[in-house]
Amino acid sequence: MASKTDLTAVNTIRALAVDTVGKANSGHPGAPMGMAPVAHILWSRHLNYSSKNSKWFNRDRFVLSNGHACALQYVMLHLAGYKVSMDDLKSFRQVDSITPGHPEVGVTDGIEVTTGPLGQGISNAVGLAIAQAHMGAVFNKEGFPLVTNHTYAFMGDGCLQEGVSGEACSLAGHLKLSNLIAIYDDNKITIDGDTAVSFTENVEQRYKSYGWNVLHVENGDDDFEAIDAAITEAKKNTNGPTMINLKTKIGYGSLKAGSHDVHGAPLKKDDIAQMKTKFGFNPEETFAVPQEVTDLYAKIGDKGAKAEAEWNELFNKYKQEYPKEAAELERRIEGRLPDGWEKALPVYKIDDPAIASRKLSETVITKIVEVLPEVVVGSADLTGSNLTRWKTAEDFQHPSTGLGSYQGRYFRYGVREHAMEAICNGLAAYGGIIPLCSTFLNFVSYAAGAVRLSALSHLRVITVATHDSIGLGEDGPTHQPVETAAWLRALPNLAFWRPADGNETSAAYLTSILSPHTPSVLALSRQNLPQLENSSIEKATKGGYVVHESENADVTLVSTGSEVGLCVEAAQQLKSKGITSRVVSIPSFEVFGAQDRDYKLSVLPSGHPILSVEAYSTFGWGQLSHDHFGLKAWGASGPYAKVYEKYELTPAGIAKRAEKVVAFYKKRGQPLFSPLISALDDISE
Amino acid sequence: MASKTDLTAVNTIRALAVDTVGKANSGHPGAPMGMAPVAHILWSRHLNYSSKNSKWFNRDRFVLSNGHACALQYVMLHLAGYKVSMDDLKSFRQVDSITPGHPEVGVTDGIEVTTGPLGQGISNAVGLAIAQAHMGAVFNKEGFPLVTNHTYAFMGDGCLQEGVSGEACSLAGHLKLSNLIAIYDDNKITIDGDTAVSFTENVEQRYKSYGWNVLHVENGDDDFEAIDAAITEAKKNTNGPTMINLKTKIGYGSLKAGSHDVHGAPLKKDDIAQMKTKFGFNPEETFAVPQEVTDLYAKIGDKGAKAEAEWNELFNKYKQEYPKEAAELERRIEGRLPDGWEKALPVYKIDDPAIASRKLSETVITKIVEVLPEVVVGSADLTGSNLTRWKTAEDFQHPSTGLGSYQGRYFRYGVREHAMEAICNGLAAYGGIIPLCSTFLNFVSYAAGAVRLSALSHLRVITVATHDSIGLGEDGPTHQPVETAAWLRALPNLAFWRPADGNETSAAYLTSILSPHTPSVLALSRQNLPQLENSSIEKATKGGYVVHESENADVTLVSTGSEVGLCVEAAQQLKSKGITSRVVSIPSFEVFGAQDRDYKLSVLPSGHPILSVEAYSTFGWGQLSHDHFGLKAWGASGPYAKVYEKYELTPAGIAKRAEKVVAFYKKRGQPLFSPLISALDDISE
Repeated sequence: MASKTDLTAVNTIRALAVDTVGKANSGHPGAPMGMAPVAHILWSRHLNYSSKNSKWFNRDRFVLSNGHACALQYVMLHLAGYKVSMDDLKSFRQVDSITPGHPEVGVTDGIEVTTGPLGQGISNAVGLAIAQAHMGAVFNKEGFPLVTNHTYAFMGDGCLQEGVSGEACSLAGHLKLSNLIAIYDDNKITIDGDTAVSFTENVEQRYKSYGWNVLHVENGDDDFEAIDAAITEAKKNTNGPTMINLKTKIGYGSLKAGSHDVHGAPLKKDDIAQMKTKFGFNPEETFAVPQEVTDLYAKIGDKGAKAEAEWNELFNKYKQEYPKEAAELERRIEGRLPDGWEKALPVYKIDDPAIASRKLSETVITKIVEVLPEVVVGSADLTGSNLTRWKTAEDFQHPSTGLGSYQGRYFRYGVREHAMEAICNGLAAYGGIIPLCSTFLNFVSYAAGAVRLSALSHLRVITVATHDSIGLGEDGPTHQPVETAAWLRALPNLAFWRPADGNETSAAYLTSILSPHTPSVLALSRQNLPQLENSSIEKATKGGYVVHESENADVTLVSTGSEVGLCVEAAQQLKSKGITSRVVSIPSFEVFGAQDRDYKLSVLPSGHPILSVEAYSTFGWGQLSHDHFGLKAWGASGPYAKVYEKYELTPAGIAKRAEKVVAFYKKRGQPLFSPLISALDDISE
Repeated sequence: MASKTDLTAVNTIRALAVDTVGKANSGHPGAPMGMAPVAHILWSRHLNYSSKNSKWFNRDRFVLSNGHACALQYVMLHLAGYKVSMDDLKSFRQVDSITPGHPEVGVTDGIEVTTGPLGQGISNAVGLAIAQAHMGAVFNKEGFPLVTNHTYAFMGDGCLQEGVSGEACSLAGHLKLSNLIAIYDDNKITIDGDTAVSFTENVEQRYKSYGWNVLHVENGDDDFEAIDAAITEAKKNTNGPTMINLKTKIGYGSLKAGSHDVHGAPLKKDDIAQMKTKFGFNPEETFAVPQEVTDLYAKIGDKGAKAEAEWNELFNKYKQEYPKEAAELERRIEGRLPDGWEKALPVYKIDDPAIASRKLSETVITKIVEVLPEVVVGSADLTGSNLTRWKTAEDFQHPSTGLGSYQGRYFRYGVREHAMEAICNGLAAYGGIIPLCSTFLNFVSYAAGAVRLSALSHLRVITVATHDSIGLGEDGPTHQPVETAAWLRALPNLAFWRPADGNETSAAYLTSILSPHTPSVLALSRQNLPQLENSSIEKATKGGYVVHESENADVTLVSTGSEVGLCVEAAQQLKSKGITSRVVSIPSFEVFGAQDRDYKLSVLPSGHPILSVEAYSTFGWGQLSHDHFGLKAWGASGPYAKVYEKYELTPAGIAKRAEKVVAFYKKRGQPLFSPLISALDDISE
């Protein structure tokens, strides 16, 4: 039953959120004010959490998909007893505070995923729910309900309009994720005003079409019991995910309630005063928490700590009855990789056959899934092209489909690249899972919103991106990436790998898996690539190494992936013309950039010109080479060898340009410095 | 009534598509075989076209959203009498043919938009339908139904799963676009196999939730009359767009019919032979067209030519009764801009106040919409932040909403960035419209799939992208672009503009509008920017110019947008330290790169070091500068001036680095060449 304390708590939340935004003179007060009731009911009666241990594994996961409402989330975390102090609330939106303008995982205690960009949070939530279902299916035993948490997401009109959320929710319905509960803040207001201007679809009907359960709360402002009842009912549903359509008034309590003015600008002083007065608070006071509210949440905190303690006991019993499983679960929760797993990675010799790197990748995956049970893999409906599914794989499916089970580790994402990446962010954020996903490199761009957040959030998501260039041939320029490598290389904290042979492919996987805070994208070829002289997993893990060394070289050819082998041939042609060349492979700019000075200069030294060769735009090669040979614009549709010929990306075409480069700098007649050396970068002399 | 000729025609289409794919030994035969009936019925009985004039303005627009089925589209264009010969069919997927692996506008006669990447085509179709509705509302008069065409799209399961199509179709329903008819090839097959593995939503229910009419054809393989009746009924619908759910068997006629094997690989020889035999064709013959089919389509071609001639007569009468409107329509169809329109562009002097470039942009838009009625503008629910709506604007809405009309020129896209850009591709492709759209620069990335196609398709779509950097302040790193400029600069045929003051903003608009085959993205600031010395529209249209010249300069600071003003201040600080600097603004890499050699070298000459300064990743600046100062990783949440300070992107921080750069190259003590000069690029000496 809703009590007076509930109302006081709800109004406390509203006032704190308004003060938080007001102090910063920036932020979004409206949704926090409208969602204060559901936040209070959820957190005080349903959400299973232990605020002193935000990493308790079986905690319910909470995602604020409408991340601009984060003043609400920070207030809840504060009240609930997480490491979010009143001073943190007062530093909202200030440089170096732990309460940034949109919620960021890793920055603030209790934040599960980074949100703000609309549609992402609910899609992450689908991933978190999948993770729970999977880990539960793998580890739970009769009498040991260890992994049983719910995943709750708040979302607004904005999230619902974004395509990524539709993709993710369609898949969530197909997978019948019954522990996923999304609460839709239906306030009919967006930045442009009433949703009537652009968003008039029947949301409930759409979610039913996805196979979701839809519940209603007509008065999300005042009817706390209805909110409670809806969540209670949602938790009981075993037939798939549930959406609670919650009608609220944005900015409830403000003079501007119900208008878009209250969405994204701080309330005016007189408005705040009248609101506080109306709520029975002192209009002169800011950041006030009545004792009864403090006490209420303290009690809930104790309850949570007790729940965690009970879980720990349960786990201890589990350890005794299922020691192997317990050790595995512990290992995976802590993110420790099994000793010696990397021995599974294939090693190649120069006389091994030429193999397409997408095929090399298939071999790696087939081997590592045996030694790393935390690895799950999926494809956006390109399984047979990405070569990501191993023969003995079981699909992750609801058992009622007859197509798999929740123990399954292979994911059929459907033609939903953006949701795939956002879901993988959720999988990675949950704990205990290393998600691999796959599509064509060109269509990783469809997921740019989510990929960016993988990097910002420091999540280890590994994207297997095949058909990586004009090498895909006939599908043509609509499918052939040109600009994609530049985008991914410019993105901070993302390792873009373009391995050139078997050892490099193994190295890409090795480094990606050993990088728990960095996402990786592996660009893989459709065409066969020869094994390279001097390549080894060890060398390739440096992100760059010398494939072919020469003393007194006239030129260095630096390349990646499928073009390295062409450079090796070009070097032979140049030799017959009296030009001595070195050949260097840089499978990852990011990883190479992290090596020490001496090593990098040994790979790309001063003294002679360096020419880059890559079947992409040359944009960005200036950091590693003096001259650049690549695509001037788009690819073309045709058999791939003919496309390479069209653009002269052949050994002869490379050799021709290398000769020109050598002559040019000889004519200039002055010492040539490695592009790695510059005034401001880390190698300055 | 379906005749024997209809069946022969349908099987001819199937056989031609199979032969087309077979000759190339590459491609997708399944969907062409399954959709041959609907293609034949649509093109022979409903589609209004004049094959000898693929640009007839009132032609029905046809889009193959499942673009991989383009063998079907090429076959139809051939049969219908477009400039697609039998030899063109035989050159399918060969380098330099006009029948590339996915349909490309501008390459093949009769292709309206470039498709292949899933979800794009149907979203373009929404744009084409909007364009017809708008042009019709503006130009049609009583008795003069000039712009009345329908827009037809074929789409498959893949398109339906993609988030962008959901966004676009939700908006299409809201806008009640009754002349839009989408035919869903419901064959239950995707690359990963049966749709049961991932796509089990109730598609019909979802489309109804968007406000679409949904019709059914249970047997899309054999029941030609049912197909015909459905299209007839769809054309009558005045209550919004219609989807025809057409059940077909993928690869109908093949031994592998109904399986995903027939989706994307050529049929085996024996399979082709049995199929042709079954169809009553000679199994030894390829590329065969029975005379009756040729005759049938020739008759339809005549009908189309006649329809076009009648339309021309109608237009001539319209010219007499409505000469002004007729002249306008002609002007817009031909893509001619009105004389002197550019005089409307605001011009600034150095002592004009400092103004944020998003505000400068608002002024430009307000002025140009008066002189360029073809300009339409919209925002993805950020109107009040993008500042893209002029005071007297009318919204483009269905009149029944009471919120606008189809004559309206302001578009409320909702929180649907990807659909917005894809719809703009359709608007631009239709003819007579110059679409501007807007969002935050960071969220242009959500639309990467469509933006890429704007560039590949040579469509003039202008994206107004505000909140372009850490300058947006408190919203924080989830919203602050770092890698976005690099991505857009690496994309071929896209002009990325980052204007630094009023004249540069006007120049960005001038050049974007004057570039009918190139999309543009304008990155605009939230914070105020001072007017610059030496700036003028004329200079800025060169994409780069000297803001502050000095003789015997020790260093050049090269920058864009909000950082140019900081460089100007830094130059003053450097002067007091005895260091002479030049300041250069490069508002557009792409446009600057197209200038002649001498001009470029006058802006970025040899002789002294050049230091770039920009509040983004420095990736890619090597083509224009020796050293680079930018963000090493993400932005931060806080008042923007404090964020700039945190990263030392201040006049003092710039000056400090400039000093270091000067000292470094002095110490090196050898002539320094402009980065524009290199062995392979266009300036090689």
